[in-house]
Amino acid sequence: MKTVQSTNARTGEPLGAPLVAHTPEQVDKAAEAAALAFAGWQASAGGQRAQLLRGLADALEADREELVTLADLETALGPVRLNGELDRTAFQLRRFADMAERGVAFERTDDPAVAGGPPVGHPAMVRQRVPLGPVAMFSASNFPFAFSVLGGDTASALAAGCPVVVKAHTGHLLLSIRVFGLIQKVLASLNLPAGLIGLVQGGGSDVGVRLMQHESIAAGAFTGSTRGGAALQAVANARPRPIPFYGELGSINPVIALPALLASKGADLAATLAGSISLGCGQFCTSPGVIVLIKDPASNAFVQQLTTALAAQKPHAMLTPGMRQAFDAGVEHMVTAGVKPLLQEVGNAEAPRPFLAQVDAVHFIAKTALREEVFGPASLIVWADSVAQTLEVLQAVGGSLTVTLWGADTETDDARALVRGAMAIAGRVLFTGVPTGVAVSAGQQHGGPWPSSTQPMTTSVGDAAIDRFLRPVCLQDAPAWVLARQGRPC
Amino acid sequence: MKTVQSTNARTGEPLGAPLVAHTPEQVDKAAEAAALAFAGWQASAGGQRAQLLRGLADALEADREELVTLADLETALGPVRLNGELDRTAFQLRRFADMAERGVAFERTDDPAVAGGPPVGHPAMVRQRVPLGPVAMFSASNFPFAFSVLGGDTASALAAGCPVVVKAHTGHLLLSIRVFGLIQKVLASLNLPAGLIGLVQGGGSDVGVRLMQHESIAAGAFTGSTRGGAALQAVANARPRPIPFYGELGSINPVIALPALLASKGADLAATLAGSISLGCGQFCTSPGVIVLIKDPASNAFVQQLTTALAAQKPHAMLTPGMRQAFDAGVEHMVTAGVKPLLQEVGNAEAPRPFLAQVDAVHFIAKTALREEVFGPASLIVWADSVAQTLEVLQAVGGSLTVTLWGADTETDDARALVRGAMAIAGRVLFTGVPTGVAVSAGQQHGGPWPSSTQPMTTSVGDAAIDRFLRPVCLQDAPAWVLARQGRPC
Repeated sequence: MKTVQSTNARTGEPLGAPLVAHTPEQVDKAAEAAALAFAGWQASAGGQRAQLLRGLADALEADREELVTLADLETALGPVRLNGELDRTAFQLRRFADMAERGVAFERTDDPAVAGGPPVGHPAMVRQRVPLGPVAMFSASNFPFAFSVLGGDTASALAAGCPVVVKAHTGHLLLSIRVFGLIQKVLASLNLPAGLIGLVQGGGSDVGVRLMQHESIAAGAFTGSTRGGAALQAVANARPRPIPFYGELGSINPVIALPALLASKGADLAATLAGSISLGCGQFCTSPGVIVLIKDPASNAFVQQLTTALAAQKPHAMLTPGMRQAFDAGVEHMVTAGVKPLLQEVGNAEAPRPFLAQVDAVHFIAKTALREEVFGPASLIVWADSVAQTLEVLQAVGGSLTVTLWGADTETDDARALVRGAMAIAGRVLFTGVPTGVAVSAGQQHGGPWPSSTQPMTTSVGDAAIDRFLRPVCLQDAPAWVLARQGRPC
Repeated sequence: MKTVQSTNARTGEPLGAPLVAHTPEQVDKAAEAAALAFAGWQASAGGQRAQLLRGLADALEADREELVTLADLETALGPVRLNGELDRTAFQLRRFADMAERGVAFERTDDPAVAGGPPVGHPAMVRQRVPLGPVAMFSASNFPFAFSVLGGDTASALAAGCPVVVKAHTGHLLLSIRVFGLIQKVLASLNLPAGLIGLVQGGGSDVGVRLMQHESIAAGAFTGSTRGGAALQAVANARPRPIPFYGELGSINPVIALPALLASKGADLAATLAGSISLGCGQFCTSPGVIVLIKDPASNAFVQQLTTALAAQKPHAMLTPGMRQAFDAGVEHMVTAGVKPLLQEVGNAEAPRPFLAQVDAVHFIAKTALREEVFGPASLIVWADSVAQTLEVLQAVGGSLTVTLWGADTETDDARALVRGAMAIAGRVLFTGVPTGVAVSAGQQHGGPWPSSTQPMTTSVGDAAIDRFLRPVCLQDAPAWVLARQGRPC
């Protein structure tokens, strides 16, 4: 019998007794229950979907204190952050509830018949969307609420009309199970099938891979490492019937700070950036891992300011002992690859110290190892000779959730080139502020070219996240009773 | 020196002298030229894109007679069909020109700042789209104009702001080169770089795979067999940086004909269906390969009518000798897999005879071999006991470009279940008529779950085809000069 164990993130000690890992047969059962629930849920009205999503938001808030306490034990993220994250998760559930109620999933394109032969003439067509089917959802380690059991993937999939089977993250296993208990109560109170939202637990291929391979699963949604996401995408592609796999993976989020702005605001920006690098112990997919500076006295001064500001930061314990070790290994890896440390201090067994280093652009471009995300409070200054070389650095990065561009307020040839270069590799380009903090909103795009995501046309945060779980269907010469459903499935 | 040879489709004889196949270095050069052209084309205005697309449409029409004659020699599709296909191709180029001029590629979502902290408050965001970059376009054998050098993939990619490198199909190589000559003249007359539309020729991994692997290529677009598409998708995924691959692959396009309708209109429907099965010698991705009938005297009568109507059809020569041989092999494969032939006659070396067979639903569901597309005028009647078993047949098919549903005019439980079952597996559901003939229109959806396409959320025909080559980017707190561009790239 395989087991799975929760851990106190601050002490590394086991939290509670070992729990039984699910067997492949139990994973299959969860997928089959989701498939059964799909028959009804795909045909549900927007109001019913909204009712469920709001019920789930209410349930989270009602048990806030207990949930945050448990989450803090398992993740060490602290009550302020965790309360904020719970707020965001409830907000997101209600936002997708509103979208479901407005009928976003049922929007359609009416394309009336045009008389005559082709190519101008054509039959009557209506383009609407159908939910894909049960979604396998892989929770992230670093957002125990917002990218976990009731996070954005689950909320958007349910709003689209898809059941969800959640693979619980072992880093907050007890919280996942506790939230799953709340879900079951809400489903029962609304007379909805228990299989509409399932949860599986355990490590290795028995659980996650098995789930991804199940023939009833119609899509995968994942937030985590590039390695883990690539492995699951390969599983999705190797199925007898490949399915869409939405992976939000690693990202190094370059910050480009131009000398003119640093000359006037360097101290403020250094403080802001130091806070962003160490926020949540650097455990954000939008954590700024690369700072591109153009050689200039103002840039030199900024580096000193940043080093000082970063040295004053006190990162908390990391999410898991494994991540704590991986951070040290990642830093070591960077040093081996030739970066020169500016700030390197020994942390303790749980919490690391911020790491800052520098390297020349030519070396950065040559060493692919330096473009790998180091999860934790580490950042690398890359020195460029010019705007042209800055663009080469961006091209070498190739894909990132965000690029931040400080100092492009005025239109110049350089500014245009930098904006274009940033847009070419990122899902979000910021002109002020820092990339950490991802708004749940209509304009959000949280996904970019590889390796930041597997499907760069999609987002895992914001209103467009629902599009991942809907597929267009054209109804040609449909009878009146089908059209009268106004985009709602039969 | 490798060569590539065009063939007279009717005689199987070589057409013209062997041509030199491109070397890997020449393929790289085409990709690099496209990357250079991208710098300017991504920033082009909609009017400039429209001008190019209309110029290409005009050029096709101006040389219509010569192009159709050459296409007919290489494909045996006949002048009527080929003139119609050229019309459609020009229509499609102009339709994307209109979309480019209207600014479809530059549409954006404005999401103004909301005051206050998260989750409600957020910075100003604008969600717009950027072109992906150079597209590797793999021509189809069966549409020498509409899914080839200047087909829908090329038109929609150019409208999106992406250069294209076309892999010429060997089945109409001389036509491809002739059209490419027209393109170069149009590009030169508009002072556009020659690399904006490239063409490579040759077989094997030196050309197609090499193109897909080139680091400057940002997306692949393919129309062809499931095997060929799956191989290229694997190449796209195995790149150091995987890229989107849009494959429109094999499809068996089930037609469900309910007994009540067959009782009243069986003879007409049999004639219509026989025409669709043998149209273009069955060489359409929407050719109806499976006919699902429910056991009933009206269905029996329909089978007799269909057999008679199909026996009267005279399919023309197939596109290539290889396809002619593959058709016989496919029919043999079906017979080996246990179907009972109803119409099986020996064709000649170029043109096959229509093939019709029948099989029980239970056997069809059990034999995956029977769900493989047989390219050519072959169709299989699947006998179901009930509507419930008809749904099982659809589930076994799993993914198809189309499902046609005859006899669902009135809302009943059975009709609802069948519409739902059809929508679950198809990109387009037809309630009258036949699936062959794919309108270029706003409501079109030409793409469905695997194996009919690799990305079921996308379409390769119709207005939404442009979406494949655009990726969303969120601009956060963008300065006034960036916003003043109204969604146009810098």
